[in-house]
Amino acid sequence: MLRIGVVGIGNMGRAHAQYLAAGQIEGAALTAVCDIAPAALEWARTQLGSEIKRFASIDDLLASGSVDGVIIATPHYDHPPLAIKALRAGLHVLVEKPAGVYTKQVHEMNAAAETSGRVFGIMFNQRTNELYKKLRDLVQSGELGEIRRVNWIINSWWRPDSYYKQSEWRATWGGEGGGVLVNQAPHQLDLVQWIAGIPTKVWAKIVYGSHRDIVVDNDVTATFTYANGATGSFITATHDPVGTDRLEIDLNRGKIVVEDSKKATILRFAKSEDEMNTTMSMADVMRLFMGGQADKLYTTETIESTDGWGVQHRKVFSDFSRHIVDGTPLLAPGSEGINGVNLANAMLLSSWLGREVDNPVDEDLFLAELNKRIAAEGKYPPIKED
Amino acid sequence: MLRIGVVGIGNMGRAHAQYLAAGQIEGAALTAVCDIAPAALEWARTQLGSEIKRFASIDDLLASGSVDGVIIATPHYDHPPLAIKALRAGLHVLVEKPAGVYTKQVHEMNAAAETSGRVFGIMFNQRTNELYKKLRDLVQSGELGEIRRVNWIINSWWRPDSYYKQSEWRATWGGEGGGVLVNQAPHQLDLVQWIAGIPTKVWAKIVYGSHRDIVVDNDVTATFTYANGATGSFITATHDPVGTDRLEIDLNRGKIVVEDSKKATILRFAKSEDEMNTTMSMADVMRLFMGGQADKLYTTETIESTDGWGVQHRKVFSDFSRHIVDGTPLLAPGSEGINGVNLANAMLLSSWLGREVDNPVDEDLFLAELNKRIAAEGKYPPIKED
Repeated sequence: MLRIGVVGIGNMGRAHAQYLAAGQIEGAALTAVCDIAPAALEWARTQLGSEIKRFASIDDLLASGSVDGVIIATPHYDHPPLAIKALRAGLHVLVEKPAGVYTKQVHEMNAAAETSGRVFGIMFNQRTNELYKKLRDLVQSGELGEIRRVNWIINSWWRPDSYYKQSEWRATWGGEGGGVLVNQAPHQLDLVQWIAGIPTKVWAKIVYGSHRDIVVDNDVTATFTYANGATGSFITATHDPVGTDRLEIDLNRGKIVVEDSKKATILRFAKSEDEMNTTMSMADVMRLFMGGQADKLYTTETIESTDGWGVQHRKVFSDFSRHIVDGTPLLAPGSEGINGVNLANAMLLSSWLGREVDNPVDEDLFLAELNKRIAAEGKYPPIKED
Repeated sequence: MLRIGVVGIGNMGRAHAQYLAAGQIEGAALTAVCDIAPAALEWARTQLGSEIKRFASIDDLLASGSVDGVIIATPHYDHPPLAIKALRAGLHVLVEKPAGVYTKQVHEMNAAAETSGRVFGIMFNQRTNELYKKLRDLVQSGELGEIRRVNWIINSWWRPDSYYKQSEWRATWGGEGGGVLVNQAPHQLDLVQWIAGIPTKVWAKIVYGSHRDIVVDNDVTATFTYANGATGSFITATHDPVGTDRLEIDLNRGKIVVEDSKKATILRFAKSEDEMNTTMSMADVMRLFMGGQADKLYTTETIESTDGWGVQHRKVFSDFSRHIVDGTPLLAPGSEGINGVNLANAMLLSSWLGREVDNPVDEDLFLAELNKRIAAEGKYPPIKED
């Protein structure tokens, strides 16, 4: 039985602790929790039972010998340093998303994981959505040919001012490291790259504190360019109460549209677009459409997902646990967390510099620019840059 | 009876000539056509009848006294100079879209129309789509509050290489002045501003000759900023055979989604988003959604349009004709054509300079940059910049 400690008993940490304590993860059991806030530990004592060990510092947890692995569910900035400590102490680590706030710290975490020989995973729970798994496999298999365009509108992250006022650190540069790009959208920043690959150039138009009393990003309109010349867009905001979640991928041999992360429509073209382009006239295509024979151009498959939110987290944890036991490949290796951080950093850096930037970004430049925002905010000390 | 001449007997000019000759526009009749190509005039003789006067030069047409108004349906670059000639000759002018290729020439046309005292319209046929008319009225009325975001994906302009090879001038810088932004997308570039207002800043990522044997724009991903801080995106391409046409507008008191220019879903919020933000918690909103009581947050109205393509052109012509007869306000005043040209120019200039640009653009800078592309192409002389 894998003995698990939960580090950080906030909203997410409590959820993880509860399903672990309830025995809902095969092969894993909650044995300890850790938080610097006495109230969080008191919550753990009353809600999880006094047999779960409680620690006010991670050093004490690591020294206790009471856990084989930890899940890190602290504020984002602390993910890499705490994960590194745990890995160096010989523990397996599952880190909450995002992997970190800036890539320099995530590189250090990935290096520590690499040399540790321990298992390192990341809580990309939406990767367990069967719909996205199938789409990733489909796109990566090459059956639909080369990607030409990717558009994701993900405005369904409505957050009122009361949400932002929950904690001092929330929606600050120095405490949280940003807004929608570090907190809500990391799932889509991961999925879009997991399915369609990593953009090489990024532009973003970002509004900071759009219709909210915050200084960080909460309205983002980004454009992507991929190595093969494909283009893309990524749009996210927190002020649309009836938000849109719509992903479109155009490929040479098909087209995919995903609505609300629940329904995917997959078109498979009878001929590749390259071939249609060279062999068909516009009139041919118009005739097929107008004549109601569009089905000669493509077939349609619809897939639906009914996965709930809570189930997804448990699936990632079970996958992590199973990997440790029998080596089943990890659905969400921790080392892949850097992709989403890179993309978020690229969007912010593009907005700050007012120009398109390469992805991955220059990590030193990003950190220097982030420190300028932390200094202007005046609430937290700058991050050490060297 | 208004006597009409059609200038330019290409694809669109033939369509206009035919419905006019068939008496389908009340109060207007075709009396003459004009084209520099003998084959086009021969087509007119056999298809329209020999009673329709035929001219090989616009000067001869204007001197003939055989028309009260003209529709200009030549290649784009010639719209302004020919419209100016006709206006100065005392004729009413209906110009095909786009108003021109670069705003400098469109300003001259608008000034000529202003001083002429004649009627000046533009063939924005999609403005006659009842759906878009209703949405414009709704948004402009202020009932849904201030706009926050506008997204339009309009990839349904599939064009194969055979289309681009139809004429020498097509899809060239010197002959046509560009690609999807001057030829296919001007309708949406007009509608998006007619409905939601004019963006003040524009960025565009443009691929030239994406999957096509052309040198001009055919894959565009643009971001907008509006004066009130709202943001937007505009995405268009010619290589998606099953294209998307989806417009979304988020406002403080509602949301609009238009699919395929045929179906609009209008949500009216029970409270403005500003009020939801200050009075509701996330938990309140989640409860309403999860409890299946989302209808407490908003009401839904659906409107559908069945307008066909051909009908729309005749509607613009009838509107133009009616305005001349009885002064009914023009649905598509010619002077508004500059908005779409500005936006297209801003996208191209942004792409050429690699930075966000103001809209309207610096017209001299745009023309100088356009001339660089014409020179590099080497097929047409540069445009006079004076």
